[in-house]
Amino acid sequence: MVTYTDYLTINTKKRYEIVDITDEIERFRAKANLSDGIILVSAMHITASIFVNDHESGLWQDIMAWLEDLAPRKSGYKHHLTGEDNADAHLKRMLLGHQVIVPVTDGKLDFRLWERVHYGEFDGQRPKRILLKAVGV
Amino acid sequence: MVTYTDYLTINTKKRYEIVDITDEIERFRAKANLSDGIILVSAMHITASIFVNDHESGLWQDIMAWLEDLAPRKSGYKHHLTGEDNADAHLKRMLLGHQVIVPVTDGKLDFRLWERVHYGEFDGQRPKRILLKAVGV
Amino acid sequence: MVTYTDYLTINTKKRYEIVDITDEIERFRAKANLSDGIILVSAMHITASIFVNDHESGLWQDIMAWLEDLAPRKSGYKHHLTGEDNADAHLKRMLLGHQVIVPVTDGKLDFRLWERVHYGEFDGQRPKRILLKAVGV
Repeated sequence: MVTYTDYLTINTKKRYEIVDITDEIERFRAKANLSDGIILVSAMHITASIFVNDHESGLWQDIMAWLEDLAPRKSGYKHHLTGEDNADAHLKRMLLGHQVIVPVTDGKLDFRLWERVHYGEFDGQRPKRILLKAVGV
Repeated sequence: MVTYTDYLTINTKKRYEIVDITDEIERFRAKANLSDGIILVSAMHITASIFVNDHESGLWQDIMAWLEDLAPRKSGYKHHLTGEDNADAHLKRMLLGHQVIVPVTDGKLDFRLWERVHYGEFDGQRPKRILLKAVGV
Repeated sequence: MVTYTDYLTINTKKRYEIVDITDEIERFRAKANLSDGIILVSAMHITASIFVNDHESGLWQDIMAWLEDLAPRKSGYKHHLTGEDNADAHLKRMLLGHQVIVPVTDGKLDFRLWERVHYGEFDGQRPKRILLKAVGV
């Protein structure tokens, strides 16, 4: 049985940014020598998301505009009484979810054509970590 | 240790539709001969969801109306500049999530009375695939 | 290989409430004797959530106000024709998600400083169950 863990660090240039991390996950799979099982991909900071969607820059802009509409950056959040200014990031991260399970079959990520794993950053410009854990054979 | 994978294909009659797939998952569990562990149920197309909720047609209508309210089908999405017309489906699928882990204990789906696994289709009328993967003993 | 299952029961005083269950999950990990793998934490009732976010009471209030804004408690839901009055709870639970995978590495929950697992109750004041399942070594 295989259990194997590693961590990615991402430091985005912008406060809000989407990054495709699928190739990093495939590199991790090879390092873990996982041929069948699952890979947990989980954001370790509570202002970031992991989600599976299309690698298409227009859609990425739609996603960011939509998140801003449903969970706007604004003053007035009670969380800001602590001195923070990122309550919107905590909410946005929950809309998209903070983790994904990637299936692995026959030594490959078991994805259809358009499935790509993305990191969604909503409070960036500093190093943030992502956990990768393989479980299987 | 058991690892076992299979795929369902669903072709809905309508563009937007909810389908209860719990019985298919139990059939898969039996085929996988999984007595304790987890089953990953994951939509392989990026315009569909997997979620656990009540099998109740009034609630299903509420869910669809609510999704349309929060992520409406409309023109103006940047994703449509590629020729697509389904940006709303990409957003709706993220609100409900695209995968579920079903726990299996003592050779049964470890669910309480009202827990049912649903497939949410937001761009249907063509064959779409769902991955099922068992990991455990 | 370890597979181990247990259940928590939570009975909140209020209809809507957030409860930090991270310490209970660490107790479960120790009982399961899991040193590397995953713990599935899954709400067994369809009007409750499991999510990872900051243990900060201002943020918890922001989350509840935000959920009420996006999925309000109101009359008019079709689900209420069955005699129920909790359609909003079914929707709120989907916004935050109903399950989380907790990674375990070196005999500890593999979390960064601010990651805490929360139970979100949207139709409480009665006993509700949460499933915990360990898979790994």
